[in-house]
Amino acid sequence: MPRRRPRTAAPRRDVDYGRLRSPFPVMEVYSADQIEAIHEAALDLLEAPGLKVLLPEARALYRAAGALTHEGTEIVRLGREIVTAALASAPTEVPVAAAVPERDVTLALGNIVFQPGAGAPHAADLTRGRRPGTLTDFKELVQLTQSFDVLHIMPPLVEPQDVPLHLRHYDMTRWQMALTDKVPFVYARGRGQVEECFEMIAAFRGLEAEAFRAQARCYTVINTNSPRQIDVPMAQGIIDFARWGQVAFITPFTLMGAMAPVSLAGAMVLSHAEALAAITLAQLARPGAPVCYGTFTSNVDMKSGAPVFGTPEHFRASLVAGQLARRIGLPWRCATGTAAATPDVQAANETQFGTWGCLLAGATVILHAAGWLEGGLTVSYEKLVTDLEVLQQVAELCGPAELDLALDALRDVQPGGHFFGAGHTMERYQTAFYDPLVADFSNFGAWEEAGGRDATQRATGIWQARLAQAGPAVDAGRLAALDDWIAARAAKGGCPPES
Amino acid sequence: MPRRRPRTAAPRRDVDYGRLRSPFPVMEVYSADQIEAIHEAALDLLEAPGLKVLLPEARALYRAAGALTHEGTEIVRLGREIVTAALASAPTEVPVAAAVPERDVTLALGNIVFQPGAGAPHAADLTRGRRPGTLTDFKELVQLTQSFDVLHIMPPLVEPQDVPLHLRHYDMTRWQMALTDKVPFVYARGRGQVEECFEMIAAFRGLEAEAFRAQARCYTVINTNSPRQIDVPMAQGIIDFARWGQVAFITPFTLMGAMAPVSLAGAMVLSHAEALAAITLAQLARPGAPVCYGTFTSNVDMKSGAPVFGTPEHFRASLVAGQLARRIGLPWRCATGTAAATPDVQAANETQFGTWGCLLAGATVILHAAGWLEGGLTVSYEKLVTDLEVLQQVAELCGPAELDLALDALRDVQPGGHFFGAGHTMERYQTAFYDPLVADFSNFGAWEEAGGRDATQRATGIWQARLAQAGPAVDAGRLAALDDWIAARAAKGGCPPES
Repeated sequence: MPRRRPRTAAPRRDVDYGRLRSPFPVMEVYSADQIEAIHEAALDLLEAPGLKVLLPEARALYRAAGALTHEGTEIVRLGREIVTAALASAPTEVPVAAAVPERDVTLALGNIVFQPGAGAPHAADLTRGRRPGTLTDFKELVQLTQSFDVLHIMPPLVEPQDVPLHLRHYDMTRWQMALTDKVPFVYARGRGQVEECFEMIAAFRGLEAEAFRAQARCYTVINTNSPRQIDVPMAQGIIDFARWGQVAFITPFTLMGAMAPVSLAGAMVLSHAEALAAITLAQLARPGAPVCYGTFTSNVDMKSGAPVFGTPEHFRASLVAGQLARRIGLPWRCATGTAAATPDVQAANETQFGTWGCLLAGATVILHAAGWLEGGLTVSYEKLVTDLEVLQQVAELCGPAELDLALDALRDVQPGGHFFGAGHTMERYQTAFYDPLVADFSNFGAWEEAGGRDATQRATGIWQARLAQAGPAVDAGRLAALDDWIAARAAKGGCPPES
Repeated sequence: MPRRRPRTAAPRRDVDYGRLRSPFPVMEVYSADQIEAIHEAALDLLEAPGLKVLLPEARALYRAAGALTHEGTEIVRLGREIVTAALASAPTEVPVAAAVPERDVTLALGNIVFQPGAGAPHAADLTRGRRPGTLTDFKELVQLTQSFDVLHIMPPLVEPQDVPLHLRHYDMTRWQMALTDKVPFVYARGRGQVEECFEMIAAFRGLEAEAFRAQARCYTVINTNSPRQIDVPMAQGIIDFARWGQVAFITPFTLMGAMAPVSLAGAMVLSHAEALAAITLAQLARPGAPVCYGTFTSNVDMKSGAPVFGTPEHFRASLVAGQLARRIGLPWRCATGTAAATPDVQAANETQFGTWGCLLAGATVILHAAGWLEGGLTVSYEKLVTDLEVLQQVAELCGPAELDLALDALRDVQPGGHFFGAGHTMERYQTAFYDPLVADFSNFGAWEEAGGRDATQRATGIWQARLAQAGPAVDAGRLAALDDWIAARAAKGGCPPES
């Protein structure tokens, strides 16, 4: 049950969706030897031919650690002993502080952290249609993410395209501070923006620079430029997040048959190699820097070249990534998704299928778990709600299972009778079962009479009601100070992204 | 790939959906001690207060084995030693012969057998709407079940309500013989109908009675009358299927809070007790009789009392059933489902969620895995297709995973380049990935331009195309002989069901 739902006179179930420990067994695709072969092939690939690193500062860090670097080609050849040492310094548990302790998360193998769809250029809902994302959409989706306990940290839901790029990081940070007490997201779009975001978050949390640096309080996602390339803003992001003690989710986006080999194992060699290189850079920038290993490996549709998600290939790639994450012992980020153009049954099925891939892979962070459509081009408000039903059901499975044999009831109810009226039932029925968010259990006649609306149509009223709820308590003085700070920076021209 | 799909010039993937071995780890809810406590509580319940068995012949079989029976109350009190002996004689592997060897199935722990929705009074599709099931619907759904390799045995899809009950078993058997080479279903609606069905199947397969008896060739589902009751047709069915060497899927239908205690463990004690009692009856009728342990335990919506499926409670009940099935070592039948009134996102999500419950429970047979709606009141043609996409994706995960590291391609493709044109990709791309049934991977613009139809709408064309395909080869002489036999029986008044 969402914590903030108004209480009624009836007893309420009290299942904590806010901290999930996985009850799911992990599933393996490859043997330990085969995983070792992938790991070794990734290390081989980093030694030769190596990877291209566009930021001189990053090449210098690699070079100082003993890597072979070439300034003309920008190629870095990274010995396996450098990678192995870096992996040894990466923390296996990463506590991340939110605005309030109830929202803190710990990134560690065995925990489950759900996030809704992230980074979409478009937003869509049934009342306003599909449109380029705006600051209004961003704010609303932050509010919705805030209102569901089963969503644990805040992603960059949609791009507020009505805010110019040199000011966008101000608004995205300001509204995360104002509307949510969950861990905020910062884009790695260059040192200038990143350090400004850190400054805003530290000030809003009332922290000096050193206190901010001592504890992860925000995170970013680093996508390498597969194959085998790390660009300037990504390399800066890796370095800056490491130096400031904030979390980088290192996530090569390796589509089999496009940016990666068409074979599962080949794609995983590439993804793993790039993740190892980026994790190594973070550790070279600051040993012990909090990082999250990550993969986002799926396939393309070989008829069109379009990226697809929630496929069997995506599922298996998640499983192999989990094996590799456990091989190196780090918390890791995985993702589900869908290529569907509309929040239909395909979209639901692909998203749930991909979610099960992540769960059976033992993923720590499961991104795009609600609302994501069109391979990430849109976040749908209605799909957010219908996917959340699945996530809440998964969260229920994370709760304890009591052993109540009900022996008296079993003896008392006569053959062919029923348990509706049994004392054992009456004492428990109001809180025994999951109370659905959007599912309608009416029979066909009642459902038809009530308007015959499908789950997606019903979801509209649910997100609208959530938006009408109050958000978390926020310090008005700090918010005013943040607004003043932003106004002053904006007046000086803001800060353009690195490219 | 469906085996019967027309070949094109392009190379085709060759994944065998017809025989699936589970690659999924099993998930447990309770400890071994707790499972033992449920098992012992079930045995206790059968000893006292026992269960009500309405068929005198069944009570006589129990009595002859040493059970305490009371003819006035029809109560049977069954000692645990009788149950334990019966379990020892039940086969752990049950081979079931179809019309052709490619369609044979083996019921054994570790195998996966999918079935579409079964026993619905209504059929629905987008072209003809929702209606009471007819023989036409039954025939079409048999054809559709036949046409998808991932559906392994034939269930009683919808009730042909336009055929009177005393003739219905003739038509259901006749059309299964004519339209499918998969293992057929026979309803246990009394000895008369059952023995007539066995006679039709044996004759159509060209078998004498003893040859038919020596090998399972059809199956039924036995639903006990929970709580703690076995009625006349069910008891007859258990006995007759056992004596004729045909398979009974023993499936108490125990909804937590309705026919079973509101608690998970309590409901599982009841379900397990009833299944053990029925399996024992089968073994007393003929030691070694092929049976399949089964459960269908879900919960009711405590606001309305309506049965619901694909819930967290249903998922966990499946897991516990799997633990109990492994405790007694028998193949077992589980089920997914949905309470949704329409083939929408709720229906898809609940069905897939329940399917994962079955898969992680290690279920041998997964019933209602495609097309089922409204808690079993309707089979939807479109939902059949969209659910089949999920089942085919699951089947893909059952295939082998090769380890192709693609080392040459990884070295050859330059940083920031792509693998689309790599030789390694070109050689494999046509067969590397799952080819979807109904998923549309077009981008939003192309999808909208093509009519903006959702997956459910697209499914209509898919089932229509499948119905236009040819069915399996059938011996015309035997079919004519079957028709003559049926005509003669019908002329004598048919055979009414037992009640």
